[in-house]
Amino acid sequence: MITLTPIGVAHTPYTETSQIPKGPGARHLADGRLEIRPEFAPGLLDIEGFSHLFVLWIFDRADGFDLEARPPTDDRPHGVFATRSPRRPNAIGLTVVELLGREGATLLVRGVDMLDGTPIVDIKPYLSSIPQDQLRRGWLGEAERRERNR
Amino acid sequence: MITLTPIGVAHTPYTETSQIPKGPGARHLADGRLEIRPEFAPGLLDIEGFSHLFVLWIFDRADGFDLEARPPTDDRPHGVFATRSPRRPNAIGLTVVELLGREGATLLVRGVDMLDGTPIVDIKPYLSSIPQDQLRRGWLGEAERRERNR
Repeated sequence: MITLTPIGVAHTPYTETSQIPKGPGARHLADGRLEIRPEFAPGLLDIEGFSHLFVLWIFDRADGFDLEARPPTDDRPHGVFATRSPRRPNAIGLTVVELLGREGATLLVRGVDMLDGTPIVDIKPYLSSIPQDQLRRGWLGEAERRERNR
Repeated sequence: MITLTPIGVAHTPYTETSQIPKGPGARHLADGRLEIRPEFAPGLLDIEGFSHLFVLWIFDRADGFDLEARPPTDDRPHGVFATRSPRRPNAIGLTVVELLGREGATLLVRGVDMLDGTPIVDIKPYLSSIPQDQLRRGWLGEAERRERNR
């Protein structure tokens, strides 16, 4: 239907998926750089005012998809749309990062969880949050509770 | 680079963009239905456990893009990546919805802000929030303050 064109590339500390923190309690605090192509750099005007950004990117090293995923956080399968599995019908990744600063067309960010060299397709401002007390985290919350009680 | 395939379609109360609440203080509380294609329905397994979902969709009625956008919320232009403008290099929309229920391959959700008939390309669980006191909302926060002081 539509074909995506990378607007830039993510530079991260991760060269293999095994290096990316996963599982219950995994926290993504790694710093990275989002290098936006010069021709798209005018699209970054005023982005410095936002503390957090949505980054949309391509799982460019995933191949094919499964409708049921077996995430590292749990020992049972779940529907792919109830997980962040890379093997999705449309291989788009989504990460919320903290914007630490900007150097020209490069954004310095915290919280990357994608592989080094990942193509970026969109950036959007993160505008509001769901209050924690209204959030239910489904099978992930349950898997975390099982892990804690082990 | 990659071509997106719709996994379903959004049914919403909005047939024209002018009907979608915009501007300072706009709240998205409209109910809608996400109808997932039967062949992708197994990917919804266990989705009921999550209170909120990310929905990725296509701005299928937007044509072309501008690197600077003039959002309805402000009288000055901003980089497209600092806005939610539909006229983006990759025309992907992102909405956080509350999951009210599921009927087979149809998700009943609250908080839709896309046009009726919009193609959906991905659904992901909404897992965590940035605490409100850590969030800066850039030009949008400023435009809202100007509006309030008018």
